Amino acid sequence: MSQPSAELIQLFQPVEEGLDAMRACLTGQLEETSGAVSDMTGHVSRFRGKQLRAALVLLSAKACGTYTAEHPSVAAVVEMIHLATLVHDDILDGAEVRRRVACVNQRWDNQVAVLLGDFLYARAFALSTTLSSRLCSSLLAETTRTLCIGEIEQSSRRYDFEVERETLEGIAAAKTASLYAAACELGARYPGGEVELGETMKGFGRDLGLAFQLVDDCLDLVGDSRVVGKSTGTDVQDGKVTLPVWFVYRDASTAVRAAIRDAYTRPNVEDRAALLKEVVDVRPGVDATLARATALLEGARARLAPLPETPSRASLEEITRFVLRRTW
Amino acid sequence: MSQPSAELIQLFQPVEEGLDAMRACLTGQLEETSGAVSDMTGHVSRFRGKQLRAALVLLSAKACGTYTAEHPSVAAVVEMIHLATLVHDDILDGAEVRRRVACVNQRWDNQVAVLLGDFLYARAFALSTTLSSRLCSSLLAETTRTLCIGEIEQSSRRYDFEVERETLEGIAAAKTASLYAAACELGARYPGGEVELGETMKGFGRDLGLAFQLVDDCLDLVGDSRVVGKSTGTDVQDGKVTLPVWFVYRDASTAVRAAIRDAYTRPNVEDRAALLKEVVDVRPGVDATLARATALLEGARARLAPLPETPSRASLEEITRFVLRRTW
Repeated sequence: MSQPSAELIQLFQPVEEGLDAMRACLTGQLEETSGAVSDMTGHVSRFRGKQLRAALVLLSAKACGTYTAEHPSVAAVVEMIHLATLVHDDILDGAEVRRRVACVNQRWDNQVAVLLGDFLYARAFALSTTLSSRLCSSLLAETTRTLCIGEIEQSSRRYDFEVERETLEGIAAAKTASLYAAACELGARYPGGEVELGETMKGFGRDLGLAFQLVDDCLDLVGDSRVVGKSTGTDVQDGKVTLPVWFVYRDASTAVRAAIRDAYTRPNVEDRAALLKEVVDVRPGVDATLARATALLEGARARLAPLPETPSRASLEEITRFVLRRTW
Repeated sequence: MSQPSAELIQLFQPVEEGLDAMRACLTGQLEETSGAVSDMTGHVSRFRGKQLRAALVLLSAKACGTYTAEHPSVAAVVEMIHLATLVHDDILDGAEVRRRVACVNQRWDNQVAVLLGDFLYARAFALSTTLSSRLCSSLLAETTRTLCIGEIEQSSRRYDFEVERETLEGIAAAKTASLYAAACELGARYPGGEVELGETMKGFGRDLGLAFQLVDDCLDLVGDSRVVGKSTGTDVQDGKVTLPVWFVYRDASTAVRAAIRDAYTRPNVEDRAALLKEVVDVRPGVDATLARATALLEGARARLAPLPETPSRASLEEITRFVLRRTW
């Protein structure tokens, strides 16, 4: 499997060996005697990404002095759950299939993507049940449930501009931050105890993950897809009211609010994000969202204060800065 | 939640109390404080069905003398995994959405169905990790993986009339019989041991589940949708070569084989199963498939021989007969 970017390799340096073990474990898990399955899992590399969650498991464990030989497997379980969510995020609904079919290069059909995601979830849970402690399987089963609830809530709030800000942040916390929180908590607590340290790192992961999602929402709105490395404008296209748009809408006049809603809903619009940016300046919303992310990341760093100064702790701190400056 | 048919209530009578406890557990698991989620889980009753797998857990335990207070929860986990597979089976691929959108009453869009299925899987695994023994979570995580592999293999074999019969049966065993086998094995073995009894009941479940799938394939091909209670002809429509069609194709002349392939693939055919039945008599294939199912069910009954004569064993025997005469 390919490697993350040079900057991340640097940040992950304290857990390089563990990450190699994690990748070997992941590769082993995705091997199947079934030809049809291995054809599909081969494509999973398309979704591989930064392996940030896996690294957080290992860095948290090292920073807390709780690292064990099983931590790379725990990290692989976390990473597989993340991969499963990415694969299922790729499923298009009926409306989207009809809308996008002309322009989207669909690598697989929807059914196959559903099955591949299910396979990854099943593989993750199966691996977690082979570990010596049940903490990994119980914590990650609950976390997966929370992820699903977050996605379902988000789906139910599409086109809802009157949503409370707390609800929006709650959705981002559930669908994204919960897995970061679980990764860091498992790093600190697995296999047995360290409940207090676990709570500290869970808080760190939650703040980091929420900030990550807020930055992601900004990148989707104003990022350059060539730099971000994935298509942008998808949130507006899908009717998702993210925090930057929420801020802009809140502070807009009645006329501009109507124009914003129109950009989300008018039929036959090719690029809704572009239309939105024509009718309103989204920069103040982006700035307010990035300010919120900055505050969250400062909070995350403060949580690390009780930990001894180690290369792993330094990497965790640097990752909070990396989240704000990432451009993909 | 509604009840299964009168005939099944009779067959499930020895485990009535356990099934009530299983249903209460299931209802509790599907309750969510999130309004969006409970809106969706409310619709799950649409997929509820016979609860045969849950009953098999309980009947196997009673028949083996291994019933514990946790068995209803184990049965609920099995049932939730089954529900998740049904919800995900309902996902349409891009081609189908385009083909069916005019005639299908899509209750939710694909994305929501994916999330609901994921939620059910997550709930099932979360519940299994709260049980006293890990046997339930480890066995069902492996089984879920097998289910996915079976579905993926089936998907990869669409329109393949040259497939080996063993491959076809292997697919049916993986996608359907594996959960029956796990239900019966868990009934007999949970929480701790009874490996030999577990193997016996696993074999019983595997034979029963494979026969169930073969009968299902026949009903989809020749059943009356009003009696079967779900739409029929879907396998041919989806390009699935099931065992009855496989037999018919194997014994057909070159010309008829071409007509069969044409019925599966000719563009703009409304009802492919009807066309198939115009070009070839499928009854011999159905008869050969039902003969195979009958042999499997006889084998299943023979496996019960070592068990003491109890009402639960009698129900298990009767269920093997029920599978052949069911019409829905």
